[in-house]
Amino acid sequence: MLNDVNRVQAWFSEIYGDIALGFRLVAVLDQVESAFQSIVVVDTLPYGKILAIDGCVMTSERDEFVYHEMLVHPALVAHSNPESVCIIGGGDGGTAREVLKHPDVKSVVVAELDAEVVRVCTEHFPALAGSFSNPTVNLVIGDGFEFLKNKQSAFDAILSDSIDPAGPGEILFSGEFFKLVKHALRSGGVFVTQSGPFWNQLDTLRTCWLHLSEHFRFVRCYSASIPTYPTGTWCFLLASDTVDPMAEVDPVRRKNIAARCRYYTEFHQQAAFVMPAFVKEALSAASSSP
Amino acid sequence: MLNDVNRVQAWFSEIYGDIALGFRLVAVLDQVESAFQSIVVVDTLPYGKILAIDGCVMTSERDEFVYHEMLVHPALVAHSNPESVCIIGGGDGGTAREVLKHPDVKSVVVAELDAEVVRVCTEHFPALAGSFSNPTVNLVIGDGFEFLKNKQSAFDAILSDSIDPAGPGEILFSGEFFKLVKHALRSGGVFVTQSGPFWNQLDTLRTCWLHLSEHFRFVRCYSASIPTYPTGTWCFLLASDTVDPMAEVDPVRRKNIAARCRYYTEFHQQAAFVMPAFVKEALSAASSSP
Repeated sequence: MLNDVNRVQAWFSEIYGDIALGFRLVAVLDQVESAFQSIVVVDTLPYGKILAIDGCVMTSERDEFVYHEMLVHPALVAHSNPESVCIIGGGDGGTAREVLKHPDVKSVVVAELDAEVVRVCTEHFPALAGSFSNPTVNLVIGDGFEFLKNKQSAFDAILSDSIDPAGPGEILFSGEFFKLVKHALRSGGVFVTQSGPFWNQLDTLRTCWLHLSEHFRFVRCYSASIPTYPTGTWCFLLASDTVDPMAEVDPVRRKNIAARCRYYTEFHQQAAFVMPAFVKEALSAASSSP
Repeated sequence: MLNDVNRVQAWFSEIYGDIALGFRLVAVLDQVESAFQSIVVVDTLPYGKILAIDGCVMTSERDEFVYHEMLVHPALVAHSNPESVCIIGGGDGGTAREVLKHPDVKSVVVAELDAEVVRVCTEHFPALAGSFSNPTVNLVIGDGFEFLKNKQSAFDAILSDSIDPAGPGEILFSGEFFKLVKHALRSGGVFVTQSGPFWNQLDTLRTCWLHLSEHFRFVRCYSASIPTYPTGTWCFLLASDTVDPMAEVDPVRRKNIAARCRYYTEFHQQAAFVMPAFVKEALSAASSSP
């Protein structure tokens, strides 16, 4: 169809197990080995600048709005008055930018492990990292797990904007971490985490769901279309003891946020939670396991 | 994350404009140059056997159920009594298989251009092409456009299971074709067509939507998660003069079909139609264009 052999033939590719995603390359803009990971910024024809960490695409100029809107808004819309928000990871700044769209929010703390991620994004992704210059945002460089250890009833919402569940990010998908999260949340609080693709990581999703179910009354899975991530569909898990994010959520809150979004609409608060039958079945089976 | 450089390094890749999808290759099983197109069957690690036509993935063993369920059920569930169904294209047999799940259906005619597609799928995809041996199914080898020319008020549902809108498939996305479709539908009839990815073909989607809107009162766009197709999210357009597929559709019909599906659930009849804000905006702008 769209094949055209005369196009530029240099590619930036992510290999993800048995599948690969390729993007026609314009230029390699930055390559850094930080104390924690390998950080690369490339410019591509289809998605503009792409940030990759340890070979995995983290964000791209063209589709970053999907991930950031969909990590933030279902949780913050479900909460009736999110004043104090904590972001674990989120060193590109996109998640903080979306949090700042909520007028209730009075403080945002971002606990990012790697200062190099912030530096690279400040240079190459100003539309994301620009949020760090907002006085409401407090950027803390350090381990997110350690950061939460000392916190009790401190936040209305905790958003885990982590890398994949392997290497430095692995602990952020553990039951131990979810226990800290629960402790750090105020009454009525909500927690959300990215949780990978259901197509190729259904076991990880199920395990994560099980761990969350041990600590929270409501655990809900939703997804979004993200073309620069493997399989193109990414999942999120939203957990709370008091709020069912799929139940009737204040339509005014939904509409007000939707008016400032390019992906999230007022209808996504329910539609995004409708999962394919085979995913629903896998998660139901997990819930009823011993 | 899932990188492992010791894995097999042979890939089957689809190049789609400025992006590429790669699948680790086990073996090339078939390669045919038919009178119309180049047909390839490969075995891959992540998705089992894949059928590709002119370099584009058409279907895979592991995820074929999504495309076939989602092409068929939203339309046939929306119709109150689909007895006579016509499939344009559909030479792999998967669409006919899903149509046969509807107890109302008394006849299915499949108008496939290329006999070689049917032969290859009968050999390599028996779980799909097996539907052709059902006596309810009438397979006609020939041009779908020509086939519809002589039909008047003949079908309750017409399903366009075509290749991409270029080459031999192009005419199946034209206003001329949609006019034939309208003529061939009985009163109360429904039409559905695959319509590509919104991420990389929003203009095509918009044009197709505009052409359909000239002939039908209700035109609705929905999408599904299909990891072997470029960008991972595929759109469909559903059109009818009498049925709004998003309006309250008989819950019994929804549930009965959902019970036999791996992707489609009773909730998809509404949730799958919720499009990202930027897609909704593009289509609304199309509707109000002169």
